[in-house]
Amino acid sequence: MSKAESKSKFLAVFPKIVNELQSILKSYNMSQEAIDWFTNNLNYNTPGGKLNRGLSVVDTYVILKNYTSINDLSTEEYEKVAILGWCIELLQAYFLVADDMMDSSITRRGQPCWYRVENVNQIAINDSFMLEASIYVLLKNHFRNDPYYVDLIELFHDITFKTELGQLLDLITAPEDNVNLSNFSLDKHSFIVIYKTAYYSFYLPVALAMYMANVSNEIDLKQAHDILIPLGEYFQIQDDFLDCFGKPEDIGKIGTDIQDNKCSWIINTALTLADKEQKQLLDNNYGQKDAAKEKICKDIFQNLKIDQIYHDYEEKIVNELKQKISKVDQSRGFKSEVLSVFLNKIYKRKK
Amino acid sequence: MSKAESKSKFLAVFPKIVNELQSILKSYNMSQEAIDWFTNNLNYNTPGGKLNRGLSVVDTYVILKNYTSINDLSTEEYEKVAILGWCIELLQAYFLVADDMMDSSITRRGQPCWYRVENVNQIAINDSFMLEASIYVLLKNHFRNDPYYVDLIELFHDITFKTELGQLLDLITAPEDNVNLSNFSLDKHSFIVIYKTAYYSFYLPVALAMYMANVSNEIDLKQAHDILIPLGEYFQIQDDFLDCFGKPEDIGKIGTDIQDNKCSWIINTALTLADKEQKQLLDNNYGQKDAAKEKICKDIFQNLKIDQIYHDYEEKIVNELKQKISKVDQSRGFKSEVLSVFLNKIYKRKK
Repeated sequence: MSKAESKSKFLAVFPKIVNELQSILKSYNMSQEAIDWFTNNLNYNTPGGKLNRGLSVVDTYVILKNYTSINDLSTEEYEKVAILGWCIELLQAYFLVADDMMDSSITRRGQPCWYRVENVNQIAINDSFMLEASIYVLLKNHFRNDPYYVDLIELFHDITFKTELGQLLDLITAPEDNVNLSNFSLDKHSFIVIYKTAYYSFYLPVALAMYMANVSNEIDLKQAHDILIPLGEYFQIQDDFLDCFGKPEDIGKIGTDIQDNKCSWIINTALTLADKEQKQLLDNNYGQKDAAKEKICKDIFQNLKIDQIYHDYEEKIVNELKQKISKVDQSRGFKSEVLSVFLNKIYKRKK
Repeated sequence: MSKAESKSKFLAVFPKIVNELQSILKSYNMSQEAIDWFTNNLNYNTPGGKLNRGLSVVDTYVILKNYTSINDLSTEEYEKVAILGWCIELLQAYFLVADDMMDSSITRRGQPCWYRVENVNQIAINDSFMLEASIYVLLKNHFRNDPYYVDLIELFHDITFKTELGQLLDLITAPEDNVNLSNFSLDKHSFIVIYKTAYYSFYLPVALAMYMANVSNEIDLKQAHDILIPLGEYFQIQDDFLDCFGKPEDIGKIGTDIQDNKCSWIINTALTLADKEQKQLLDNNYGQKDAAKEKICKDIFQNLKIDQIYHDYEEKIVNELKQKISKVDQSRGFKSEVLSVFLNKIYKRKK
């Protein structure tokens, strides 16, 4: 099954989820306008992305169950695992609606951010809450009788909290309107990246699939964790690299991390290497909405050969990850293929 | 034990909770500034209120366990039930931080709203998320081995979702900047009041105590629910009444519901009774920051004898509740006293 086919199969489950959630509001005799509002909130904020996280749950489950393709799953089994996937997409929607407000972003996935839609404004805060709450409604409806029900709930709670911690450190380390590079460090970058992104984007989809496939011994969850977290960190460092060094025609956008005062791997690495004069220049020019100042920062990055440092890092981390993956203990049913699939999607990607 | 003593005993547990949550962040090697930020968030937003909800958990537990006073509980048992109480206070803090942003409020509990504190601003959204997440960290740390652990989690999830639904209907029915009384109705008022307030303020504290006291048969939870929800609705209607008809020297503040375009019981009742001319006057004068217009609305309320209607309603609902309470089946250990304590606190209160 092609990627596009998997995606459309996954997307076809979403309207059922919306229906299911609507029917709860109807059972409470909620007014139609409120039901319509909630429906809009769900449809506007949940599906429109790449759905990588949600699709990863399904893909991982297929591998762990030794199926040859998604088509081997019964309709019921497919919908159940897809619901877990949609729960991550709801979690992501919850974060993004709020992040866009906190970052004063303008657009998201090619449309205005939800809080900028007419009549929404600050109501978006409550809407984000409802996206999160929907996760637990779905888990209760579909997994309450499964022995791993509590594990799913605790996993979502734990990773939600971790993501919020990463977001907090990011917000107080690199506020867009108050540039202070002395707040930055590679340690903080690593914490932010792991907590804000790696947990929910890499570990969460695999752990969810592991529970449902009944391959969820603590040792196996730890094997997955100990590879997926550095893999997620690598992914984000690569993202930071592409934002600054990628070609716009490859990455499909023009990087804005320098002007946005992002606490990225690039600036953090540069700060460890820069001499006094370069540091002063970075202090004066990073994080400002000014193309000339951005260029000054980029030139320093070139002079410090940050691209070479990145490529060395990439070779090193990829070798380490491959080593670790080759040593995965598969005796309890866990499969290293789950992890190599992730690594292969990421290594040397250009966008 | 006096009310003040119970309150200070309850307050003494909070620093331990803060400590416990801090230690998790420390175990993640989070930076000190982020730990300090989170600590501030907890301390600024959680304790400063009347703590009625939190204290109700403890009081209900004492009654259900046949203790004569709080002093009969061991330190360990007291702290455990107090933690459940603090979980409601955290839920309330989560809602209030967000509500204040959505309502553009200025002060809360005698201090600036959190989002108006220097450097906080929109970060308050993520802070509200972390207040909610703390609930589940505490439940996991203290109740994971109890047979009712899942019940506690599901109860919090369910009531959080209900409160958000009530908040949504309130936000779209009565936006402060767009007065349209034709959106209003007593049905919507009832939904808003029950979902936004009664569930988490009245049913939740009792249900939590019932689980911990092991008096949690479904029939008993339903008995509690079926009295506490109308009781909570009565409480809020009384609140609406006091805002408009209470003496400032009694209620300790000057009511602002009319100027704030609140979808209150008063305006909704008035709209069912007003003739065409009165309706027109209300349309033109309700929900505006203008004392003369407020006076016009108040005069109509007087002419329609809303105060008399309220007093009739109060006598009727209180008699109904007393009747229901007298018929409570106590055979499985549930106690009607739990409910009469609530009713006695509310009936004919002036503030």
